[in-house]
Parts: sequence; structure tokens; C-alpha cells
Amino acid sequence: MASKSVLTSQSEDFPRWYQDVVAKAELADNGPVRGTMVIRPYGYAIWERIQGEIDTRIKAAGAKNAYFPLFIPESYLSKEAEHVAGFSPELAVVTHAGGEKLAEPVVVRPTSETVIGEFMAKWIQSYRDLPLLLNQWANVVRWELRPRLFLRSSEFLWQEGHTAHATSDDASAYAIRIQNDVYNDFLVNVLAAPTYQGIKPPSERFAGAINSMTCEGMMRDGKALQMATTHELGQNFAKAFDIHYQSEAGQAELCYTTSWGASTRLVGGLIMTHGDDAGLLVPPRLAPVQVIVVTVRDEPDVIEAADQVAKSLLDAGVRVEVDRGRGTFGRRVTDWEIKGVPLRVEVGPRDLAQGVVTVVRRDTGAKSTHGLGELAGGVPTLLETVQHDLLARAQSYLVEHTHDVTSVAGAIDAAKDGFARLAWDLVAGEGEREMNDQAVSVRCLQRRDGSMPTSDEEGDLVCLVAKSY
Amino acid sequence: MASKSVLTSQSEDFPRWYQDVVAKAELADNGPVRGTMVIRPYGYAIWERIQGEIDTRIKAAGAKNAYFPLFIPESYLSKEAEHVAGFSPELAVVTHAGGEKLAEPVVVRPTSETVIGEFMAKWIQSYRDLPLLLNQWANVVRWELRPRLFLRSSEFLWQEGHTAHATSDDASAYAIRIQNDVYNDFLVNVLAAPTYQGIKPPSERFAGAINSMTCEGMMRDGKALQMATTHELGQNFAKAFDIHYQSEAGQAELCYTTSWGASTRLVGGLIMTHGDDAGLLVPPRLAPVQVIVVTVRDEPDVIEAADQVAKSLLDAGVRVEVDRGRGTFGRRVTDWEIKGVPLRVEVGPRDLAQGVVTVVRRDTGAKSTHGLGELAGGVPTLLETVQHDLLARAQSYLVEHTHDVTSVAGAIDAAKDGFARLAWDLVAGEGEREMNDQAVSVRCLQRRDGSMPTSDEEGDLVCLVAKSY
Repeated sequence: MASKSVLTSQSEDFPRWYQDVVAKAELADNGPVRGTMVIRPYGYAIWERIQGEIDTRIKAAGAKNAYFPLFIPESYLSKEAEHVAGFSPELAVVTHAGGEKLAEPVVVRPTSETVIGEFMAKWIQSYRDLPLLLNQWANVVRWELRPRLFLRSSEFLWQEGHTAHATSDDASAYAIRIQNDVYNDFLVNVLAAPTYQGIKPPSERFAGAINSMTCEGMMRDGKALQMATTHELGQNFAKAFDIHYQSEAGQAELCYTTSWGASTRLVGGLIMTHGDDAGLLVPPRLAPVQVIVVTVRDEPDVIEAADQVAKSLLDAGVRVEVDRGRGTFGRRVTDWEIKGVPLRVEVGPRDLAQGVVTVVRRDTGAKSTHGLGELAGGVPTLLETVQHDLLARAQSYLVEHTHDVTSVAGAIDAAKDGFARLAWDLVAGEGEREMNDQAVSVRCLQRRDGSMPTSDEEGDLVCLVAKSY
Repeated sequence: MASKSVLTSQSEDFPRWYQDVVAKAELADNGPVRGTMVIRPYGYAIWERIQGEIDTRIKAAGAKNAYFPLFIPESYLSKEAEHVAGFSPELAVVTHAGGEKLAEPVVVRPTSETVIGEFMAKWIQSYRDLPLLLNQWANVVRWELRPRLFLRSSEFLWQEGHTAHATSDDASAYAIRIQNDVYNDFLVNVLAAPTYQGIKPPSERFAGAINSMTCEGMMRDGKALQMATTHELGQNFAKAFDIHYQSEAGQAELCYTTSWGASTRLVGGLIMTHGDDAGLLVPPRLAPVQVIVVTVRDEPDVIEAADQVAKSLLDAGVRVEVDRGRGTFGRRVTDWEIKGVPLRVEVGPRDLAQGVVTVVRRDTGAKSTHGLGELAGGVPTLLETVQHDLLARAQSYLVEHTHDVTSVAGAIDAAKDGFARLAWDLVAGEGEREMNDQAVSVRCLQRRDGSMPTSDEEGDLVCLVAKSY
């Protein structure tokens, strides 16, 4: 393909390939302040689609969106020392505002959990106020010394869910619901990115959590990426923030809370799950542009036909654009391949004379010829086929890059090229430290059948270990 | 109405009434840092609806969303001194991050225009890249010493559009398109809040603008509120940020730019345009909850019927909720009145025995009885009637609170209770200063027929003056 020369290939230099895709697909640029990013219109359109799909699922799970302030008093972050421990070197601190020095510095939120905790305590009075199911879409700041667009940036966009429940069982059930119905459903059915779902080992749990669940994806360089996480905080967080309710019996009781999040990191996950040497590849259900109609020559008849094709696809519910742009046909094709638009419809005079157009799949390069009249019927089906095939391909990749091993040394070796899976008993404690020395970590624990263990489950668990982002 | 005792009345103390509505309708709370706000789920649901309606119109006008960083190098804000002049005391400055003092402090964006300017300069090469039509939804910070929820907060949410064009005519035409097709269309057809559209006098223009257009609404205390603004920046902004393009003839030319914005202030505008002594009143096309179904008694048959009513309305495309809450029927009715839900369906045993339910309009209190079978057909029509009536009422209010006068003294007097309209010739210069001394200002200039003048139009203009938020 012509496009191969435009990008560094994955095998040659994967980090460079990633940078090339982000730049050439016009997804993002570095901002003027180190570690910040400018998300360009095409990158933001992808994020809006991710956000919309996740938001719909969050609302279906009964949580309501709210908005909490960007600025947090510095004193809040010492309320729960355990929480702040992980953050302080990452904080950005405002010391001056309104033309003068502030009496108390304020911190730019690294997460809103402290302020949400305070307001939960205020809003929750009785058992009738429970569960309280909140979510926020916002920007957060964690200063990054080694930033990478979408994967590690000083400012990023995310959603953070925070819920309070009357009982431990209710909190656990809700956390699992978010993990399954929001994150896993989105990842599998929209992003076409199958992951290993499991719980974090105690050493990798979120500060203050009694259980952290994760979706761990496999990138095309053999490294794992955490796509989303859900935490059960037991009563720890409620204790720190005084989140009590009056039970039906009139007793003051501590709530059980959960928190869960996913971020613009998912755009990085998209790039590295599906991308190839020709660029990005966006699954059709996610794609802001599902079909690009490209004119082979800029002749009036061809342009008119292209507009009609687009109109008929739009009417069929397809997200479609026409490229009336500049440059040669070849160059435009390459550009749309880099952007990863799933299907390309080529409209040219020779085809038109026969009443047909050519449809090209971005994922396989397969071409098919379609009569103008049946295009609007055929394209939605073809998009679903592409969606299905991308999921199957990613699923195969995940399986092929998971190696069952029987020792820590074997796991470290296997992690050069994906996940290693082995008995958790062989790893816990010393084995984890040994791996960490080699930049390999336990990504999650599962039961032998691949299902999610409970937080305190003992016994026959396996762990998936890998290098990771 | 029972609810009257819950809120301060408008006539007694309007600012207090406003505070009461914000608190009792559960729209927002003060954040822990002075001037910041917590937007509660119901308030945020209203904002999401505003955002969605405006976003659809922005996209229809061809602009694309992007995201620019929260942090801006302090040096950027001196690039165009004229722009920064208005902001510096309002800036929040980050001096420490990553655990150390920053070499150059960074500013929390009061607007993203400087950084957007820089990237426009980078992205625009040739005339083929124009127009470049960008929009951003984001939080911005302008330190407020006298904050008021939604109206003046240190952090607020907004959209800011920034566009670059090849010619002055193209820039002007686009600015007018945004003003008419985005802002005015939203205000009239969704928010049911008619405004005076006009241009700002030179003294009230945005820094650096050659023309500022505004939509000025009339609140129920007789004060004006600027609901949205659109600025033509001529080549001033392009000059400051080096935004050039190569023309078809191969010449380097400066672009013409525009910027335009609307914010969470619109929630304040909603409250003060339609609210009454019973609380908020949300126009049906905007309302996150258009119909609340309230059970008169919590009996199984009644609850089941309420659920069926809600289901049939949902199927008819109505945004509906069932109140299965606590408290007496009267208390629940009052709460939903405060929240301003346009229609209430009361489901009670006596009505049910006759196969009917009672529908109550929030705006007029009018009750009507509907057979269960015809409710799903009747409610959408009734919602449109309410929408229409609210617009008509607000329109009458605007007209009644606009007084044609013939002197500056007369205008100052009339501004106690709304807009004064008079010949611009009588005001320009000394008259403006005289008014400003009395906290009255020129809100906009119009032609005699109410239409929008061009920026350099001389001659027979009128001005609308008022006290304002």
C-alpha cells in the first residue's frame, strides 16, 4: 500500500509508529505546556463517540451526571492520607488568583473524589437517599514528566463514577454491573477490544480500595493497557468523609462506596488495538465517519454521483462524508486509510457508466462492486461484518499473545510478547517483586475459567502478567 | 399554591428568590473554594439539554469540536495586550506542579483564544484550509469576588467557537449565521426566551473585536442578561497570532476571524426568564423531565397504573419520570413545581375507577382530565401548547418592559423596570457615561425596525439600555 511509506512501521519502531498515527491521522498535538494535549477535531470526534456510548450505558445503569469544581482546597487532600499518598508529586497548585496570593493554595483536581465525598455526606440523610449514583465527565490534572499523547498526559478527560450504598452486597453488585454492563459491554461491542477482566492483586489496588476490578487489553506491541477500572471502597472512603445514613431502624450507619473511571486513554487503546502499518482502524460502531466517498476524478457527473451515494447512505443511517478535497486520488485514499475509516466508496467514471461503485474495506483491503441502487442496503450489513471481523481478529490476537506458563521466570520471558498466565500461588509475594524488577506486573487475577473472582477469594486463581502502559 | 411558602417571593426579594430556587430545585451548591459551584444532577441535566441543543446547531453550521489545554503559558497572555487587559486580575495562576516550582507559571484558561490562535496559525496553510470552523466545550476560570451561582462563578462551563476565514464578508456572514441559527434559534425555539439582538456600542465591544453581537434577554426583575455573544475580530486577532494563508494567487494573506460563546449562565437566564413564586419553570422542549407522574396514594393498583402511564408516554417520545418517592402527595407536588417540570400527571384511585387521570400544567395550574387511552396522544400536543404559551408570555413581558423614551434621563428612569429604547444619537458619548454612573448601560444597538445593523452602520439607530447582570 502507498500509505506504508508515510508511517513508520509497527515492527520497525512501535512508539514511533504510534506518534506517527496520532500526528498523521490528525488526532492530537502537544500543547504549549509540557504534557498537555490539543485534541484535534477528528480525535475529538472519536472521543465524543466513546463518551456518548459510555454515557448511554452509565445512564442505563441509573447513575446521574453532575459537575464538581476544578479547584479543591489543599487541605482536602490530607483528609484521607492514604488517598493522597499516590498523588502529591502529581498535583498542580494554584497559589495566586484575583491578582493576589491566596490564603490557602488550591489544587487542580487530580480526581474529584474528595469533593464528591464531602457532598455525598451532605446529600445523604436516610436510607431513602440510597443508592446515590453519581457520574462526572471532566478534565483532571496529574503532572506527567514523561507524557505521551492520550496514554499519559498532564491533563486528560475522563468520567469518574462515585456511588454510595446501604450495604456491602449492594455496592459489590453495582460495581460488577458497571464493570460488565458499562465497560466490558462498550469494549467488546463498540470498541471491538476484548480484554481480560479480573481483580487487581492487593499490591496493585487503588489506594483505599478493598477491591479493584480492571479490563486489561493487549496492544499490538505485546504490552497490556488498562482500559477501565472499578473500585469497591468498602467503608474506608465513607469513614474518611463521614458519609452516614440513617437506617430504617433509625441507626446511623456508614455507607459503602464505589468509584469507577475511563479516560481519553481509550483513544490510545483504540489506536494500539486495531491500528496497522497503514494507520488507524476504527471499528464501524465507534467510527465518527463510517464511510468515506471518494471521487476518482473531479468531474461534475462523478461529484454529483458521489453526493447522491452519500445522501442515500445518510438516509440509511450511515455516518458518511464525501471527500471533495484536494490532492491526487492516491493521496486522498492514503489519508483516509491513515484515519482508519472502515469503508471507502470509490466513485469513478468507468464504474458509473455501468451503474456501479467500488467499495473497499479498510481492514482487509477487499474490494467489491455494488449497484448504485443496492448500496444503501448493502453498506450497513458490510459495516457490521467489519465490526464482527475486527472483534474476531482482536480476540485471536489476545489468545495468541497469551502464554500459559508454570514459573515466574517463564512468565517474565513470555511477557516479552504479551500476557503470561500462571497460577497465582506461584507468584504472590516474592514472585511479584521479581517480575516488577523486570518491568513486568500482575495485571489481574481470574478464576481458572476466566471469570471474575470476589475480592477475598482464596484458592485456585490464575494471574495474567505483562509489561504494560 | 402550597409551594409559595417554601420560597421567598420574587416581589419580596428577587436575589433571595433566585438563591432559593437554585437551592430548593437542587440545581447547584457552592463549592468549597470561593466562587466555584457544584452543579447537582437536576441542574446538570438541564445544562446537558442546553448543551445538546446548542451543539446540534453548531454542528449544523459546519463547526467541529476540538479540545485545547486547560493550562496556558503566562507569556501567551501578553501576546495580545489588548486581549489580556480585561483578564489579568481574574486569572488563576499555577506556580507549583510535579512537586516543584515551575520555571514559568501557567495560567488556568480564562478562555482558550490564545492557544487556539496559535494552533490556527499552525493548521492553516492555504486558502483550501479555509474556513476553519472550531468549537470547544470546556471549563474556564475567571476569579470572581462577588460570585453568584450560574450567573457569575469563578469556574464556569461554556462553549467557545473560533473561526478563520479568507475574507471579511465570509467572516461576517458566518458570525451572523451563528448569531441567528445557533443562538437566536435556540433561545426562541427551545429556551422560549426572546431577546433583543443587536450590536454592542464601541464602548462595550469585546477587546480586539471590530463588532460584537449580542442576545439581550429581560429577567423578571427588570434587569437585562446577555445570553450569548458573537464577535467579529477582523484581522486584529490574526495579526496578533500570525494567522496567514496563501491565497489562490500565491500571496500570503491575513485571515479574518470570529469568536462566539454561551455558558452555564444560560441556566441563570432560564431561571429568571420563566421562574415564578412557585419555583423554576422549564420549557418543555428543554426540560430533562417533561412529565412527572405522581401517585395520589401509594396503593399497588395506583402504582401499577402510574407505571403504565409512564410507559405509554415514554413510548410516545416523552421524557417522563414516576415519583415513587417519599412524603405526602402535597409535598411531592410542591417539590416538582419548584423543579419546574412542565406537566404533572396525577394518578389516583378515584380517577382510575373512571379510567381517567388528571393532567396539571405547571405554568397556568390548569387541570384537565384525560382517558388513559388517549393520554399518549394528548400529552405531546399539550407540551407544545405549553412551549408556545411560555414563549408568548415571555415575549409579552419583554414588550411590556421596554419603554420608548426620548432622553437619557428618561432612559435612566425607565431602566428601573426593564429596557429603555431611544435614539442612539441622544446617547453616544456623554449620555453613555451619564447612564453608567447610574449602573445603566447600553445593551445593544438596533435599526428602527429591530433588525441587526452592520458594525459600521451610521444613521438612524436606536439603543436598548438597561441595568444588567
